[in-house]
Amino acid sequence: MRSIEVCFSPELIHLHEVTGKLVVVVDIFRATSTMVAALAHGVTEILPFAELEACRAMQNKGYLIAAERDGLTAPGFELGNSPLAYTDGAYAGRKLAMTTTNGTLAIEKSKGAAEVLIGAFPNLQATVTYIQSRDLDVLIHCAGWKGRFNLEDSLYAGALVQALGESHANREDGAIAMESLFALVGGNLATYLSQAAHAKRLQNHGIEADIDFCLSLNLYDQVVGVSQKGELRIV
Amino acid sequence: MRSIEVCFSPELIHLHEVTGKLVVVVDIFRATSTMVAALAHGVTEILPFAELEACRAMQNKGYLIAAERDGLTAPGFELGNSPLAYTDGAYAGRKLAMTTTNGTLAIEKSKGAAEVLIGAFPNLQATVTYIQSRDLDVLIHCAGWKGRFNLEDSLYAGALVQALGESHANREDGAIAMESLFALVGGNLATYLSQAAHAKRLQNHGIEADIDFCLSLNLYDQVVGVSQKGELRIV
Repeated sequence: MRSIEVCFSPELIHLHEVTGKLVVVVDIFRATSTMVAALAHGVTEILPFAELEACRAMQNKGYLIAAERDGLTAPGFELGNSPLAYTDGAYAGRKLAMTTTNGTLAIEKSKGAAEVLIGAFPNLQATVTYIQSRDLDVLIHCAGWKGRFNLEDSLYAGALVQALGESHANREDGAIAMESLFALVGGNLATYLSQAAHAKRLQNHGIEADIDFCLSLNLYDQVVGVSQKGELRIV
Repeated sequence: MRSIEVCFSPELIHLHEVTGKLVVVVDIFRATSTMVAALAHGVTEILPFAELEACRAMQNKGYLIAAERDGLTAPGFELGNSPLAYTDGAYAGRKLAMTTTNGTLAIEKSKGAAEVLIGAFPNLQATVTYIQSRDLDVLIHCAGWKGRFNLEDSLYAGALVQALGESHANREDGAIAMESLFALVGGNLATYLSQAAHAKRLQNHGIEADIDFCLSLNLYDQVVGVSQKGELRIV
């Protein structure tokens, strides 16, 4: 029986066994949602960076450069962290270098896993189908907010546990808790999350449309984002 | 409006502001439940220790000594970590030195708080009444299991958030999530927690009666456990 566990913060990842597992990195508001949108709309490759300077330097190599710090586009970058910037296909065929506050760190700290996927609500079912084709235990790695638990990443974890169902029936405590919580509030996700700290911060930035996108289920049936050797691509 | 937040592990406490807050330390299976039982049944003072040797040395000073490691009584100690050892009043009037796997660490890491309380289901309402008499923001510090999220401590956090209600209406994400989860499963706590990893480990030790005690609500209406200068007492 395959197992499933949730790590609620990159600050706790050293307490989990990553090696040999399929790790799903989640940063719903908005890094992994944006990555999935970019890949779904034709971006061919995403390189995640922890630091602004290394990310910016990729512009000279023909990369589109995107950077977000505290919810805003970092100065000197072409794009911030909005998934809706990609949905009209304007960047199809481009390669993207990207850095975000929480999400990139979680990807970096997932090194050593058998596979690393990029989780988001818009491609939940595609990700589930892919995971079920693999004979691997699953670790959901929530980016959290500045190292702390956050509601949106945790609820995605619950949605994934629920959708995987019996294929990953060996659930540790965090998976049990979040599956129950998603079963309770998943039908009303936007309303429930409007209480959450991060959603409130984003509302202050006037990006309600981004939030709606990030909470939309199964827009992309065929898109699974996989990190291989530090590059994200569709498989 | 007073705020309430949940820290799910001592490994995350450095990301929370402790100073000036009322911290409630929780280790439901079984450290804080045992501490509350001991105080309710006449133990006059509890000194928590991180290390076995320092705890054992207190025997020469007239202390009853208790130590648990991985769910079992440590060799050479009079007591382990069972709340039921105290409920017949056999240790009334004694002072207790105690060390446990997860609970003691969470108490140590709460230093700097305005006040530190010991949380357990058997004195939930007494703790709520005390907290509501104080004009302080609340941080619930879950001991977790070896640094990871656990279900029973998190559900106590949810119970406390729910019971405090409007007096602490400014809730961060962990408090929102756990209040919802407790509202869903609190009426069926023992059944729900029988899935949890720690409860399964304890069942293997044959201590179902301990588990029942630890999940019993409001046995002690007047007992509030407070840590002051490293000593736990009733206030």
